[in-house]
Amino acid sequence: MDKARYELGQKTLKAIHGGHVGEAMVNELSEVCPEFVDMTIEWGFGEIASRTGIDLKTRELVIIASCVTLGHAMPQLAAHIEAALKVGCTKQEIVEVLLQMGIYAGMANASNAFRVAKDVFDQQQ
Amino acid sequence: MDKARYELGQKTLKAIHGGHVGEAMVNELSEVCPEFVDMTIEWGFGEIASRTGIDLKTRELVIIASCVTLGHAMPQLAAHIEAALKVGCTKQEIVEVLLQMGIYAGMANASNAFRVAKDVFDQQQ
Amino acid sequence: MDKARYELGQKTLKAIHGGHVGEAMVNELSEVCPEFVDMTIEWGFGEIASRTGIDLKTRELVIIASCVTLGHAMPQLAAHIEAALKVGCTKQEIVEVLLQMGIYAGMANASNAFRVAKDVFDQQQ
Amino acid sequence: MDKARYELGQKTLKAIHGGHVGEAMVNELSEVCPEFVDMTIEWGFGEIASRTGIDLKTRELVIIASCVTLGHAMPQLAAHIEAALKVGCTKQEIVEVLLQMGIYAGMANASNAFRVAKDVFDQQQ
Amino acid sequence: MDKARYELGQKTLKAIHGGHVGEAMVNELSEVCPEFVDMTIEWGFGEIASRTGIDLKTRELVIIASCVTLGHAMPQLAAHIEAALKVGCTKQEIVEVLLQMGIYAGMANASNAFRVAKDVFDQQQ
Amino acid sequence: MDKARYELGQKTLKAIHGGHVGEAMVNELSEVCPEFVDMTIEWGFGEIASRTGIDLKTRELVIIASCVTLGHAMPQLAAHIEAALKVGCTKQEIVEVLLQMGIYAGMANASNAFRVAKDVFDQQQ
Repeated sequence: MDKARYELGQKTLKAIHGGHVGEAMVNELSEVCPEFVDMTIEWGFGEIASRTGIDLKTRELVIIASCVTLGHAMPQLAAHIEAALKVGCTKQEIVEVLLQMGIYAGMANASNAFRVAKDVFDQQQ
Repeated sequence: MDKARYELGQKTLKAIHGGHVGEAMVNELSEVCPEFVDMTIEWGFGEIASRTGIDLKTRELVIIASCVTLGHAMPQLAAHIEAALKVGCTKQEIVEVLLQMGIYAGMANASNAFRVAKDVFDQQQ
Repeated sequence: MDKARYELGQKTLKAIHGGHVGEAMVNELSEVCPEFVDMTIEWGFGEIASRTGIDLKTRELVIIASCVTLGHAMPQLAAHIEAALKVGCTKQEIVEVLLQMGIYAGMANASNAFRVAKDVFDQQQ
Repeated sequence: MDKARYELGQKTLKAIHGGHVGEAMVNELSEVCPEFVDMTIEWGFGEIASRTGIDLKTRELVIIASCVTLGHAMPQLAAHIEAALKVGCTKQEIVEVLLQMGIYAGMANASNAFRVAKDVFDQQQ
Repeated sequence: MDKARYELGQKTLKAIHGGHVGEAMVNELSEVCPEFVDMTIEWGFGEIASRTGIDLKTRELVIIASCVTLGHAMPQLAAHIEAALKVGCTKQEIVEVLLQMGIYAGMANASNAFRVAKDVFDQQQ
Repeated sequence: MDKARYELGQKTLKAIHGGHVGEAMVNELSEVCPEFVDMTIEWGFGEIASRTGIDLKTRELVIIASCVTLGHAMPQLAAHIEAALKVGCTKQEIVEVLLQMGIYAGMANASNAFRVAKDVFDQQQ
């Protein structure tokens, strides 16, 4: 393990998802595969999401686009809509990405994503 | 048809893909299904891509994310990497999106997308 | 907006999904993105599903095939199995499409689709 | 092997794809996996495609819908557009299915499918 | 139907999933499409899963890899993680496959698969 | 970077794909994104593929299953069929995995994968 990268990952995980979501993931998956948790932190957050070539807002929007296109990654879609709001995206910017996804990922995927967005937006009020 | 929207679509199509790509698509697909071409222009470009809630640079990056996630939309991926550069994204910003997609769409999809990006970047020099 | 197309879309939406499903969608998604609802009605139903080059029964069967192939579009699959019955498809015709999908979309997708079909068929009795 | 079903499969394969495509598949894949060829003939064509609950024209249209939704099954898409024409579908009916797929499988998939259709239509003239 | 193959399929179904899962599937799907149940038994289990070119343990691991990659085949993923344990795979071997899938199917798919694995592992204790 | 892991990755990359494929990838992608190459080597090969919980033969077979299921990852499928042979899988074992994928990933994906396998097998003679 690259320890500096792991620690940066922990910091970025907290910045994106908040302490709460990060801890929930660590607790849930550590039992079945602690290496996967470490890898998510070191690679997903420490190596990739910590990069500065695009800002965190843009990064969250492209992750949302990917989750909508996959079509089945609903827990990740919800977590990243929440994260997008947390790092400063407006609801309108998220809605714009989902509308654009109607063209590329199909209207069924977009429709299901709007339902997820509605749930997250409702919880934030 | 909503004529004002269609004309806005033509303008946005030209702004994103240039006259060349727009004309090639119109010529190629008009013979087999002119309604699909009209729908792409009026709806895809006039209704969706012309919206201003996110800027064109961000819009192109989320479309790229979606194409990488689909994994097979190679002509669209190439066209939108080209478009992203045209509307002001840097190569580095595009590369950042592809790196992030390695996490969500898998390393094989990212790898194939980097090959497409390399071809587009090489043609631009 | 092309108002004539939007109104045709409302009529086709009602013909396919019934007033009930149409209203539920409008109510659920209007709050988060009314433009997406309008687009679904104008484009999905007014422009595409209203076309007469194939009859509504065939149209519903190809939509079902697409939902089974996507594999995750379960709410849409249920709504279109219901719609297929409404526009005159028999249960047997729907079953034939799901069987054929076992070959193209894989037996897991077909199996999950049969479970959805069973639920819709059971509710109709 | 169920010999009667295998022979029915051979007959249906010929009815759908013509002697030419059937022979090409048998020749190409027999060397690497003859069981796969037998399974395709006995199961795919003798068991599934020979069923009469939907007519061959509708069957070909739902297969086309599935191939467009997969997005990468280009050889199969071309073969089944050809087959659809052979069993009596009009070009317009095929075009209608591709248009409908723009809504469910996304406009990129539909666009790539229209290019395949154009090639098949051009070869038929 | 090839009766010998069907009976071999029933035996293999029982060996892989146990009497319980096999009966549940037969009961649930027989009502809506008994041919699909027969086909699953004759083809999926009698023709394919009964083959001896790879052992049952390896076969279950490649099926798990496919289910994780599909991303939405959650009931099948759970059934085959259970089956893998039943035919002699260790939890660690299953975990290794899921880790490898993080690279090919993406970290979101792997993450959702680890949650399914955790549930199955917990039920086994 | 964790240098020991990177070096282990280089060794594993060479063991799986041979010096030739490894160098080709490094040369092709280093220009457009050297970090992606490093990540592939350190994470994909040094962290994941070097693990010993399943043997290299099984690992290659599950990767093949994932590539067939994706359906569009053709360069990766070819490289890993080659790799599977290199680490000691027989052609028959690879063929068994592709046959099994006919059930889960659909017959079109399996068919296209058999064509790739045929090409790789032919080149090996």
